[in-house]
Amino acid sequence: MLTVNAYAAPSATEPLVPTTIERRDVGPSDVLIAIRYAGICHSDIHTVRGEWGPIQYPQVVGHEIGGEVVEIGSAVTRHAVGDRVGVGCMVNSCRECENCRAGMENYCLKGNTGTYASVDRDGTITQGGYSTHVVVDEDFVLRLPEAIPYEAAAPLLCAGITTYSPLAHWNAGPGTRVAVVGMGGLGHMAVKIAAAMGAEVTVLSRTLDKREDALAFGAADHFATSDDATFDALANRFDLIVNTVSAPLPLDRYLSLLRLDGTMVNVGAPPEPLPVTVFTLFGNRRSFAGSSIGSIAETQEMLDFCAEHGIAPETELIAAEGINEAYERVLSSDVRYRFVIDTTTL
Amino acid sequence: MLTVNAYAAPSATEPLVPTTIERRDVGPSDVLIAIRYAGICHSDIHTVRGEWGPIQYPQVVGHEIGGEVVEIGSAVTRHAVGDRVGVGCMVNSCRECENCRAGMENYCLKGNTGTYASVDRDGTITQGGYSTHVVVDEDFVLRLPEAIPYEAAAPLLCAGITTYSPLAHWNAGPGTRVAVVGMGGLGHMAVKIAAAMGAEVTVLSRTLDKREDALAFGAADHFATSDDATFDALANRFDLIVNTVSAPLPLDRYLSLLRLDGTMVNVGAPPEPLPVTVFTLFGNRRSFAGSSIGSIAETQEMLDFCAEHGIAPETELIAAEGINEAYERVLSSDVRYRFVIDTTTL
Repeated sequence: MLTVNAYAAPSATEPLVPTTIERRDVGPSDVLIAIRYAGICHSDIHTVRGEWGPIQYPQVVGHEIGGEVVEIGSAVTRHAVGDRVGVGCMVNSCRECENCRAGMENYCLKGNTGTYASVDRDGTITQGGYSTHVVVDEDFVLRLPEAIPYEAAAPLLCAGITTYSPLAHWNAGPGTRVAVVGMGGLGHMAVKIAAAMGAEVTVLSRTLDKREDALAFGAADHFATSDDATFDALANRFDLIVNTVSAPLPLDRYLSLLRLDGTMVNVGAPPEPLPVTVFTLFGNRRSFAGSSIGSIAETQEMLDFCAEHGIAPETELIAAEGINEAYERVLSSDVRYRFVIDTTTL
Repeated sequence: MLTVNAYAAPSATEPLVPTTIERRDVGPSDVLIAIRYAGICHSDIHTVRGEWGPIQYPQVVGHEIGGEVVEIGSAVTRHAVGDRVGVGCMVNSCRECENCRAGMENYCLKGNTGTYASVDRDGTITQGGYSTHVVVDEDFVLRLPEAIPYEAAAPLLCAGITTYSPLAHWNAGPGTRVAVVGMGGLGHMAVKIAAAMGAEVTVLSRTLDKREDALAFGAADHFATSDDATFDALANRFDLIVNTVSAPLPLDRYLSLLRLDGTMVNVGAPPEPLPVTVFTLFGNRRSFAGSSIGSIAETQEMLDFCAEHGIAPETELIAAEGINEAYERVLSSDVRYRFVIDTTTL
């Protein structure tokens, strides 16, 4: 066992505090990673505050991890000491269900093992990336291309893959029109990636505050959803809408923006059921879908794509002592666009 | 103008009564059809009773029409006097929008012209198939294969195409597992068509009353949705669910039956918004979609497919005086599976 520094939530209502946690011994197929940077995802906040269901405390969160391999197990073949690597939202899966066998472990039918707040194979609760080290099965560790620094890699491993996967699956590319709803951590990555794929990208957000950024990230246009005229102007326009907003939006209004055979895919996760009118879906044979992170193979593909296209998240680096303040700023959308913790400060 | 016999709704609350209506003179691109049979669709009832919005009265409904060409306009090239033909749910479209130009006039962005209760190009309200004759632009008239009798053709033109189109679009076929929800007029056609396409078909209906029929139509199995165990037994099972039920079902329960990349497509038309939980869509990257009839080209393809595979609807022939009683029986699901009016009795 290895005792390492971390920042943990002691309860659903208290601020995160410095602590130490135990990491398991490096097993034959494990990799020990010295974490260099960890991104802060809105999911971290939902989880520690119990908003997605009760969890055990203390809990360390963080599933956007960039670091260096410092030890490997005897059977490890995919990674070597000194390798630059990353870990995203999952650290294992059942490996037996039809989805796992198809290489889609993000859709593991038994539920993949989350990087934090999940029950691990040994019965312990997984502890996340706000920590100096983590031990992960080699199959769930990504290679970081040279072109991607650790602090940029971290947010790619959740925000990047969560938006890359639906854009790739629903064929964003030259000749397609893609709308990105919300331009926070996920949304700004969706804009950069969709633009790099060759799609015509339109940002839809409540106000036009981030218009300059949107255009700089590659968007062709930016509309305010607080303006009713937007929904008339853009009716029947998009092949794909990637909705990154976790608040409950009026779905029918957004669905009406889809052209023939268009899909609106949610990567934002509103917990409450949302009303959809079937007649809206009849028009243009529209679809409403969900997408959940991406497979390990697809995450590697995304990292390589971002390296090739020079895509990196916009980050604001913070020390560990700034985590609680960062949470408040995430909640008030006061971040452009992703906080990343320098884990040497833990 | 041609004065012809018909059965019309005088108001939203009165029974349908015999009447006469005027059909327009046969224009250069028009075809005059002597109707032989007209199917009764649940949509007819919704429409005349004003349940899908206010309409003008008197109104003749019916959009499942089989008959013979008795006169053609000077510019008609696709049909000849004596041809056996059919008319379905639409009789025109704008022909200019991107969907019409793509040959998808069922998704006309200006709204196609419905066979009844729609505003026609000349400003009149279209009157449907419970009538002895109808005048229709040749481009919206289908050829009936020899193998399909008039009375069988009629229900194919709504119930047939409405289910064929999503089955074809979402690739029902060998190796795919398709569930059909509800086994009424649409559902029983969905079962026959999906089975003929080679899919493994499961019927989901409230009770097992129609189990023998389902198996005879080609279903591999039949489950009762009134039994909670059904939803556990079939979790993550289907590539495609075709929901033919217009009542509000608990969508999340049905969506949970979809396997990776599965789609549940509604052809049933509940008017009220229905709640969908995004987390259900996250699992297996599921989609919820709508599909509305089919294009003219696809309707022709469906007719040819049904002729080739010996597929016909199960019909109960009635005389015009039986229409009101038939409506009550449709509403109480007491029909196996489609009423068809012998229009010689009008």
